[in-house]
Amino acid sequence: MGHTWTTLNYLRSPQEYIGENLETFKSEMLEFLRIPSISTSPDHLEEVQEAASWLKGMIEQSGLQAEIHQTPGHPIVLGEWREAGNNAPTVLVYGHYDVQPPEPLELWNSPPFEPEIRNGRLYGRGSADDKGQLYLHLKAAEAFLKGPGNLPVNLILLIEGEEEVGSPNLLPFVESQKDRLSCDVTLISDTSMIAPGLPSILCSLRGLAYFDIEVRGPSSDLHSGVCGGPVVNPALALAQILASLQNSEGQIAIDHFYDDIVEWPAQQVEALKTLPFDKGDFEESIGRELCGGEQQYTVLERLWTRPTVEVNGLNSGYTGEGAKTVLPSVAQAKVSFRLVSDQTPERIEVLFRQHVEQVAPKGVEVTIRHLHGGMPWRSQLNEKLKSAVDSALTKVFDKESVIAGEGGSIPIVNVLEQVLESPVLLLGFSYPGCNLHAPNEWFPEENIENGIRTIAHLYQEFSSVNKLR
Amino acid sequence: MGHTWTTLNYLRSPQEYIGENLETFKSEMLEFLRIPSISTSPDHLEEVQEAASWLKGMIEQSGLQAEIHQTPGHPIVLGEWREAGNNAPTVLVYGHYDVQPPEPLELWNSPPFEPEIRNGRLYGRGSADDKGQLYLHLKAAEAFLKGPGNLPVNLILLIEGEEEVGSPNLLPFVESQKDRLSCDVTLISDTSMIAPGLPSILCSLRGLAYFDIEVRGPSSDLHSGVCGGPVVNPALALAQILASLQNSEGQIAIDHFYDDIVEWPAQQVEALKTLPFDKGDFEESIGRELCGGEQQYTVLERLWTRPTVEVNGLNSGYTGEGAKTVLPSVAQAKVSFRLVSDQTPERIEVLFRQHVEQVAPKGVEVTIRHLHGGMPWRSQLNEKLKSAVDSALTKVFDKESVIAGEGGSIPIVNVLEQVLESPVLLLGFSYPGCNLHAPNEWFPEENIENGIRTIAHLYQEFSSVNKLR
Repeated sequence: MGHTWTTLNYLRSPQEYIGENLETFKSEMLEFLRIPSISTSPDHLEEVQEAASWLKGMIEQSGLQAEIHQTPGHPIVLGEWREAGNNAPTVLVYGHYDVQPPEPLELWNSPPFEPEIRNGRLYGRGSADDKGQLYLHLKAAEAFLKGPGNLPVNLILLIEGEEEVGSPNLLPFVESQKDRLSCDVTLISDTSMIAPGLPSILCSLRGLAYFDIEVRGPSSDLHSGVCGGPVVNPALALAQILASLQNSEGQIAIDHFYDDIVEWPAQQVEALKTLPFDKGDFEESIGRELCGGEQQYTVLERLWTRPTVEVNGLNSGYTGEGAKTVLPSVAQAKVSFRLVSDQTPERIEVLFRQHVEQVAPKGVEVTIRHLHGGMPWRSQLNEKLKSAVDSALTKVFDKESVIAGEGGSIPIVNVLEQVLESPVLLLGFSYPGCNLHAPNEWFPEENIENGIRTIAHLYQEFSSVNKLR
Repeated sequence: MGHTWTTLNYLRSPQEYIGENLETFKSEMLEFLRIPSISTSPDHLEEVQEAASWLKGMIEQSGLQAEIHQTPGHPIVLGEWREAGNNAPTVLVYGHYDVQPPEPLELWNSPPFEPEIRNGRLYGRGSADDKGQLYLHLKAAEAFLKGPGNLPVNLILLIEGEEEVGSPNLLPFVESQKDRLSCDVTLISDTSMIAPGLPSILCSLRGLAYFDIEVRGPSSDLHSGVCGGPVVNPALALAQILASLQNSEGQIAIDHFYDDIVEWPAQQVEALKTLPFDKGDFEESIGRELCGGEQQYTVLERLWTRPTVEVNGLNSGYTGEGAKTVLPSVAQAKVSFRLVSDQTPERIEVLFRQHVEQVAPKGVEVTIRHLHGGMPWRSQLNEKLKSAVDSALTKVFDKESVIAGEGGSIPIVNVLEQVLESPVLLLGFSYPGCNLHAPNEWFPEENIENGIRTIAHLYQEFSSVNKLR
């Protein structure tokens, strides 16, 4: 480790190094995004492994040591640089190199795994969630290790390949490596800024309880004319069950569903109103009026402070062109709930099952599988950490950061906070409307530079704080 | 036409000819069923044409003249033998050589288009609906033309390739050929006997109004966490719309839906109770309790005398393995109603559209397409016709026939009755549970012989009636 002959000749600062190597960074990032590391698909096992290997190589190239840890699922990649000494803080960066399936493919303007930059946007599956953002941290570290030759903090990179399928193997790994992963703060860039140019620190995430529900009727598909009437139609029964989950006021109509919610402090709710959020812009971006959910809450409250029910998928009977008069044997839906503190996926599962049992019509058999879940999260940031982040962000964006919430879930945040007993800092660089989990996912080109620079500043800020915790 | 040298040597009776040629009949029928004449699928255009050509050849081989009439869709095949003279009645046989799609393929025990006889059942798509049954009429005619050399009636075969897609081109053809198709009675074998061994004459068919309903939400799929809450979920909205179609008593909850129904006469409803219909057997065959539909009606009434609503298909969002947290952009369903006299698909479309407009939540756009429809039908059979049929059936099945209803739809029945101004006689030889429109469709092997023999007897009976009308 340490200086190479080349860097001894001319010790560039991290920020100089970043400026000089931006184009290389971008082309490397495109290379990473080309690997279709779809963790939920059994057809992409090899590509997920390939992404892990690529990552290991890139971490080593950045000047850290790297290891691949196989798990019963997809591998975990670990990077380490621990030469900053015992007095320097230890920063753990968490990220994930797996991505969501790209379907429906026909809606992409350029192929999901042939990333390209158009009009200031880097399009490609994983560009924002999370390969692109994760990659910023590698390059911030490289800017120190290849620039001055040293990082001002000890650095651990913990990168998994199963975030999009509920991180089944991360907790066992983190628990078994608890001492090795011990840190003062965990950094995660897997979220969005509240608006372009406005740096944001996240104070909340929603949790998730995701289910598969299957309604079985007759043992095989029947002719809807010959048999229709006395046979309960499982697709209609499924629709009845799903419809019963929400009342006409947009509230979730499951008994006790709201019991465990701790409402945000009035002051924080009030502060949401000062954020530059424009309902009309959001409506324009999605091409539809925002009239869903609980009407008595503002749009931002509905997005960040309130739980939801969503039907994520429906499948039954004949779905091709034209007409087929089938009475289907089975109907399936994917149903998920976003949760807020202190709801838990376990409790919601119990309530959901009770509800479905009550409302399911006779003459069908209903099976519910809890596919995955994650706890909601509220930030535990102390003042020292917050001011270090503010300072780093202000240097790059020339603006004070704001506190925001987030509607999505990163279940691992709670897990890391609890097992490692240190706070998590969520510092995202994508924008609202980046099409996460959807066709034409993109990441703002300018934030490739801004992100790397901010993280580099942040390492510097951390090193000047006496104790982070 | 007339006798060939061979038949002059030994003039066999039609029933003798049938007995001698049964094995040939069966292997020819298998050949016919091997052609995947799926009319709804654009991928099977050639096979549908092939089925029409095969049929033309087989009609000619049976001793009739045959023609193929191209239409804007699939061709109509016409067969004719008119040498019975002006005093003999003219019988028109209607059938269809197109079949339903075979999906889901994995549920077939033998491939849908590789028909085979197992345990007294001929399995294959189209074996019962309607290629197999249609084929019985060809062979009954052949039994006269190759046996004694003459038919006792003038015979017209009218065979279309678009029954499973709503017969869009049959009515124009029938109207334009009205004089040529003029007949004393129309025979159709596309239905089922009420029980094995019990010959049945159908007195009613249900009509059909089949719709595609599409609910559009955001302009592209969204992340259900980032955007969930204020955005109306189109899959949930679709579920709400569908659920609203039926109340908890199994009644259709559309205003004025039942207004046009003419209830069956009490005496005919009472007669249904004498039919050998066993609810328990039916439940066992479908593997589920019969607790759907309007509870105040018996199962047979619900099947034959009452309308239904069915969800025939559902499609939205992510339907693969595992979890994808997508808020889908669009959700689709196929919804159909079975109708009874005097409901009309046109009126039901109006009521359905009004209902959906009332119940559809804000924040989504709902589009309804009426894919196809057909009128319900009540039989106009006179006593002469009925006794001719009874007599033919009794000769083969050694049992008096019963009057039954049918839950399915054959929209063309009304059309033929009205345009040709002659009664339609529905004489089916499949059994309940023959898996029409479903995997493992089959036709009872014994009714290949019974069906051909019955039809041959019927031609004889018709010729001895002075005037059929």
